[in-house]
Amino acid sequence: MECGNVTMLTNSRQVHIEWGDCDPAGIIFYPRYFAIFDASTTALFERALGLTKFEMFKALPFGGFPLVRTQARFLKVTRFGDDVVVDSRIKFGRASFEVEHRLSLNDEICAECLETRVWVVRDVDGGLKSKPVPEDVLMKFGP
Amino acid sequence: MECGNVTMLTNSRQVHIEWGDCDPAGIIFYPRYFAIFDASTTALFERALGLTKFEMFKALPFGGFPLVRTQARFLKVTRFGDDVVVDSRIKFGRASFEVEHRLSLNDEICAECLETRVWVVRDVDGGLKSKPVPEDVLMKFGP
Amino acid sequence: MECGNVTMLTNSRQVHIEWGDCDPAGIIFYPRYFAIFDASTTALFERALGLTKFEMFKALPFGGFPLVRTQARFLKVTRFGDDVVVDSRIKFGRASFEVEHRLSLNDEICAECLETRVWVVRDVDGGLKSKPVPEDVLMKFGP
Amino acid sequence: MECGNVTMLTNSRQVHIEWGDCDPAGIIFYPRYFAIFDASTTALFERALGLTKFEMFKALPFGGFPLVRTQARFLKVTRFGDDVVVDSRIKFGRASFEVEHRLSLNDEICAECLETRVWVVRDVDGGLKSKPVPEDVLMKFGP
Repeated sequence: MECGNVTMLTNSRQVHIEWGDCDPAGIIFYPRYFAIFDASTTALFERALGLTKFEMFKALPFGGFPLVRTQARFLKVTRFGDDVVVDSRIKFGRASFEVEHRLSLNDEICAECLETRVWVVRDVDGGLKSKPVPEDVLMKFGP
Repeated sequence: MECGNVTMLTNSRQVHIEWGDCDPAGIIFYPRYFAIFDASTTALFERALGLTKFEMFKALPFGGFPLVRTQARFLKVTRFGDDVVVDSRIKFGRASFEVEHRLSLNDEICAECLETRVWVVRDVDGGLKSKPVPEDVLMKFGP
Repeated sequence: MECGNVTMLTNSRQVHIEWGDCDPAGIIFYPRYFAIFDASTTALFERALGLTKFEMFKALPFGGFPLVRTQARFLKVTRFGDDVVVDSRIKFGRASFEVEHRLSLNDEICAECLETRVWVVRDVDGGLKSKPVPEDVLMKFGP
Repeated sequence: MECGNVTMLTNSRQVHIEWGDCDPAGIIFYPRYFAIFDASTTALFERALGLTKFEMFKALPFGGFPLVRTQARFLKVTRFGDDVVVDSRIKFGRASFEVEHRLSLNDEICAECLETRVWVVRDVDGGLKSKPVPEDVLMKFGP
């Protein structure tokens, strides 16, 4: 991650772990955590910009924010019926940004994830190309 | 479905369609609807019984309510960012029960589903065996 | 389904049921069946046309074959580790087509599904519009 | 990872990326990679032991091999219709083991993942407890 001026925002949301998120051991099938974290990154942008991701595609030079790297730790299991809280925090660098997610149950951290993502735009031939996050997007995340 | 005495309950819940629920056409990948409907059936039981499905396994002679038959119609597409409403209604028969789900966006029905399920219990050798829904469970759904 | 001239093709493929396809009851989470059936319909087209679905978007006036209606029966459970066989059969009508899937384990049918789908193309404003399946596509499925 | 005596085995399998694995950007929804990697770890055990994971639960003191940590890099996108190859390599330590997965398309690496897992058994009260991988399991992976 590049240093320098850094903007930050956090978001918190509740997620109900469903029967269908869980595996035969009765606990969450961990790839479902990554779907929860992906939705949590989207929720963070939606909150900051006041746009759904669908609206972002229409309103902004935006082709997605694909993941380039991730790491996660799984500390305690969660099960169907659990109402977990995901706290997400974003940090913008020059060429990429990081989102840190903490998923907790009754104030105990169950899983942590660090995502490194890039902002991409469609170029003329339809491919996706990494670009700095636009200034007016950054500004929505705070001074 | 057997006729006779029938109890009914409805439940309504909101679901946010996520990016990861959608396919390259930009619309929901329809198997995700069935995951939403399954969670809606669970939500209906959780509301009526005041127990999570996890707690139902501990508190009741209960091994699940597997699907034996389903049918669905898809009328209008939904997309990531849509906040849809799922209205579910249950009807108990003698040997099975039906749950009807209507998923709508801005009061327009997008998908309808009818599930036929059975209540099962674990028998002594660990297998699953269909049983009538217990009386005290039925009573929680109303007179 | 409209009657009249009807072409048919069948395809058969093997699928390994994975741990992550199964729920806390240790059996397949049924929405995963619909993902398997969707992939089986794709496999049938891929086999008939000699094109992947990705290539179909490039080579044909094609915007997908969304589901409009489906019904399924679940007769026997399957579990992680099971190698199941999916036999799929397509029947083309005038305005829609049907695909019937039978999923079996050791020659016993475990699940059956009937899908009604339409062929769609992108129209000028980017929306999806139902169209008859092109003649040259139909011809690949046999006389 | 603890050093010392280390056994290793590799496995390679082909996976067809499906339409339903992909998101509205037309590329794989990355949580699906983790489901593919999870199934690849299972495939590696199934190959070494000659047992399905389901059979492992019956034949061994085995309650699963949950993930405690993972990291992944995503280098090139994959799309529906791609036949990718997943090469997996396991390394056993004293208290945990690591599985490294490389997913490639036409011999170009698209994604890499490192999983740290533990072998668990059910203890008397039904909970899961980490244990060393049994000696006779280790031996199946080679001298």
